[in-house]
Amino acid sequence: MANASQKALIDFVRDRFGERPVVTNVDDIAPWLVDWRGRYHGAAPAILQPDSTEQVATIVGKAGELGVPLVPQGGNTSMVGGATPPADGSAVILSLRRMNRIRSLSAEDNLAIAEAGVILQTLHETAEASGRRFPLTLGARGSATIGGLVSTNAGGTQVLRHGTMRGLVAGVEAVLPDGAVHDGLAALKKDNRGYDLNQLLIGAEGTLGFITAATLRLVPAIARRAVAWVGLDHPRTALKLLREIEARSDAVESFEIIPGDSLALVLSAIPDTRAPLAGEYPWHVLIEAVGGEGDPNDPRALLESVLAEALEAGTIADAVIAASEAQATAFWKLRDSLSEAERSAGPAVQHDISVPVADMPDFMVDAAKRAEARFPGTHATAFGHLGDGNVHFHVRAPQGSQWDQWYAQEAETISRFVNDMVVAAGGSISAEHGIGQMKLRELERLGSPARLATLRAVKSALDPRNICNPGKLVALAPASRDT
Amino acid sequence: MANASQKALIDFVRDRFGERPVVTNVDDIAPWLVDWRGRYHGAAPAILQPDSTEQVATIVGKAGELGVPLVPQGGNTSMVGGATPPADGSAVILSLRRMNRIRSLSAEDNLAIAEAGVILQTLHETAEASGRRFPLTLGARGSATIGGLVSTNAGGTQVLRHGTMRGLVAGVEAVLPDGAVHDGLAALKKDNRGYDLNQLLIGAEGTLGFITAATLRLVPAIARRAVAWVGLDHPRTALKLLREIEARSDAVESFEIIPGDSLALVLSAIPDTRAPLAGEYPWHVLIEAVGGEGDPNDPRALLESVLAEALEAGTIADAVIAASEAQATAFWKLRDSLSEAERSAGPAVQHDISVPVADMPDFMVDAAKRAEARFPGTHATAFGHLGDGNVHFHVRAPQGSQWDQWYAQEAETISRFVNDMVVAAGGSISAEHGIGQMKLRELERLGSPARLATLRAVKSALDPRNICNPGKLVALAPASRDT
Repeated sequence: MANASQKALIDFVRDRFGERPVVTNVDDIAPWLVDWRGRYHGAAPAILQPDSTEQVATIVGKAGELGVPLVPQGGNTSMVGGATPPADGSAVILSLRRMNRIRSLSAEDNLAIAEAGVILQTLHETAEASGRRFPLTLGARGSATIGGLVSTNAGGTQVLRHGTMRGLVAGVEAVLPDGAVHDGLAALKKDNRGYDLNQLLIGAEGTLGFITAATLRLVPAIARRAVAWVGLDHPRTALKLLREIEARSDAVESFEIIPGDSLALVLSAIPDTRAPLAGEYPWHVLIEAVGGEGDPNDPRALLESVLAEALEAGTIADAVIAASEAQATAFWKLRDSLSEAERSAGPAVQHDISVPVADMPDFMVDAAKRAEARFPGTHATAFGHLGDGNVHFHVRAPQGSQWDQWYAQEAETISRFVNDMVVAAGGSISAEHGIGQMKLRELERLGSPARLATLRAVKSALDPRNICNPGKLVALAPASRDT
Repeated sequence: MANASQKALIDFVRDRFGERPVVTNVDDIAPWLVDWRGRYHGAAPAILQPDSTEQVATIVGKAGELGVPLVPQGGNTSMVGGATPPADGSAVILSLRRMNRIRSLSAEDNLAIAEAGVILQTLHETAEASGRRFPLTLGARGSATIGGLVSTNAGGTQVLRHGTMRGLVAGVEAVLPDGAVHDGLAALKKDNRGYDLNQLLIGAEGTLGFITAATLRLVPAIARRAVAWVGLDHPRTALKLLREIEARSDAVESFEIIPGDSLALVLSAIPDTRAPLAGEYPWHVLIEAVGGEGDPNDPRALLESVLAEALEAGTIADAVIAASEAQATAFWKLRDSLSEAERSAGPAVQHDISVPVADMPDFMVDAAKRAEARFPGTHATAFGHLGDGNVHFHVRAPQGSQWDQWYAQEAETISRFVNDMVVAAGGSISAEHGIGQMKLRELERLGSPARLATLRAVKSALDPRNICNPGKLVALAPASRDT
């Protein structure tokens, strides 16, 4: 079902590079036409899967000539439909999964060069084998690839200390929309040769070119960690506690906030879970502090002293530090099971939002109250990366409602309501998941005219034929709102 | 001598905002038509000096309509002619110096919002009054302004630990080329709403719009510091020493390398200086480690243990830790006097270059040898920020040569030779000073076609009328090479 241009591109790739980089079998393609949550369904007559930067460059150059759009894919773990091809079948999928070499890893320099198709977990394991660590992790680490993680400026649970992908990328190699190769892999700590093209490509969701490799910063491996669970009265108290710890040390990597009723859901819905503390508290915090090899600081001593003082001062209600790795893992399981537990209580309209850190405690509480008041019977929950000013904000269906019908009727209205509150608070409607196709209309509705005009101008200038992941992140014409 | 369009702009500004934002007195304008080193001479009939973002936006919008180019100025401390207007008098200077308010400073959040015209030293002092520190400093701190520092992605002597301006800016407010205001001041740790417009404006040298304010990250004030002076045999040894310290702590803020003969020049040319060590060594290193309030680590103990081990192992030849603040200041004076001492020995063609850190030790030595062999009689010296992979590379005139004549004849050839070596090493011909007008031709000669095409495309798309600091950073047409 390839159109003439697509057929010409496929034939060209076969002719130049043989059968290996071409997938046209319908069954082989099918899994890659749907996002992992099953929300977006696309069509494409082929997957092209080059195994070198040169092959990518050749393919992109030819696709540009022929006017065939390319949709890049790594692990296909986008939360916003960013890797699903358009439904009209006009595009071809460009899979980077075969570019899966770790080209180099220097423990001395704390740098690794990984190709786009390297799976995050593989990088973790390779770094660990050299006594180092790549300090970004997230639930999809077994599937998500470096190319996708860079292209979406991925976050996760260690951003508090190490930043998002934007801060961990020391260099980028990419094929630009005209097929030219941008070689920005050299890890230069200082480089003032004009607009930072690497930074422009990070988080661009493949709309300005295709990342083929990245130079990534490593940190020392973790020698020991301390994981604490705290019960307290309000997110404001949680932030105060975080500030207290940060004033003494930068060893805290995770600081996750969990509402008391969400924890109750986890305890009732997820097998083999138990409450870390005896009492019940309105809010809970999971804290992880780590120490590297040779690091004189003891993360456990740090948490013990801060928490003891906070208990004595009456700031927090109760706290416990995991006595073993098994207990630490059990604490993390409670945090990681939140989404699953929430699902068991009914469908929720989900949002990945950020506001300035200092404003997040009150925002979490006030926004939940306002959402529940505006949509009677719903239950609104905010949880997650308090230290990053980023929470996942879920509005759950009323008990007893017809879930599918409720979602179809209410989801868009609820999201607009939540996003309006976020914008009023000076925040972002996409903290870490990106825009993809899911948030495109909301970005158009809520983005400042200056920002939107700039996005369009950059996209049009660098990808004038709209070859690179069209229909994602930036809407080129206002007309596209109606499609 | 204003042309009709300039006159219309000046009249418009007077009409809207009164006399205060308009300077047309020739004597008042004169100092701002020349860069501080006296290398670039421009012309302009007026300085416009708005005192609010709204005034800047109104002026830029009108300038766009009238086609009057604007050259932004802060402290006028550019090293590359980046703030000097074109010699043909076609532009008007837009001074941001009256926008000099620190809009807010939160010690708790470690953030300050400073307007473009705030002088770096003022920010330092204001932060210190709140027990905080803005961890970027450089020689021109008494004149350089926040707008210029952000626009040039400034570096300095604390980059090793805290990064360049790019890493210290949490938010940007700017007036875009069409007069629209980009409000990106909110300090969001996570924000994935597409291309990072803030990052695009940082280091753009005012060619994509004018920064009016920035949100800046603060760190705890320094409670104590330790400054060491080390004698050793080779830059490779110096880098090894740095790695050793970094493996134990991130407390090192400065790690500056100084050749033995440069130190000798300082000792002979600069009054009130004395050698920190008794012996003579081929290379010297100045190390500063700091500890914040409440930080359990002792920077002095750190340096003592590392240096004692290195001495015992025979890695380094000698070392001393400053016994007092006065001695620490004296050590820094030696480092800070390098350029002045070099000048006393004759004019030098100067380069601000970077290569990957691991490659810098050999590059420093080899490049100096090759330059001296290629240009007989010259003396080549590399010194500075070894830990950042950034050195200042000077090629000094042969003794006894006619200095002015030598410089006029040789400077360009020497720079091309040095820059060729830098590019061959995968480095940058501008590490921290930017491109401005000084390095424009070399960037055109040596930049990859992909990079240059992208710079031009972005500039043309965002500033189609070429209103913003024309002729700096990016040459819009190849023809401009010949102007």
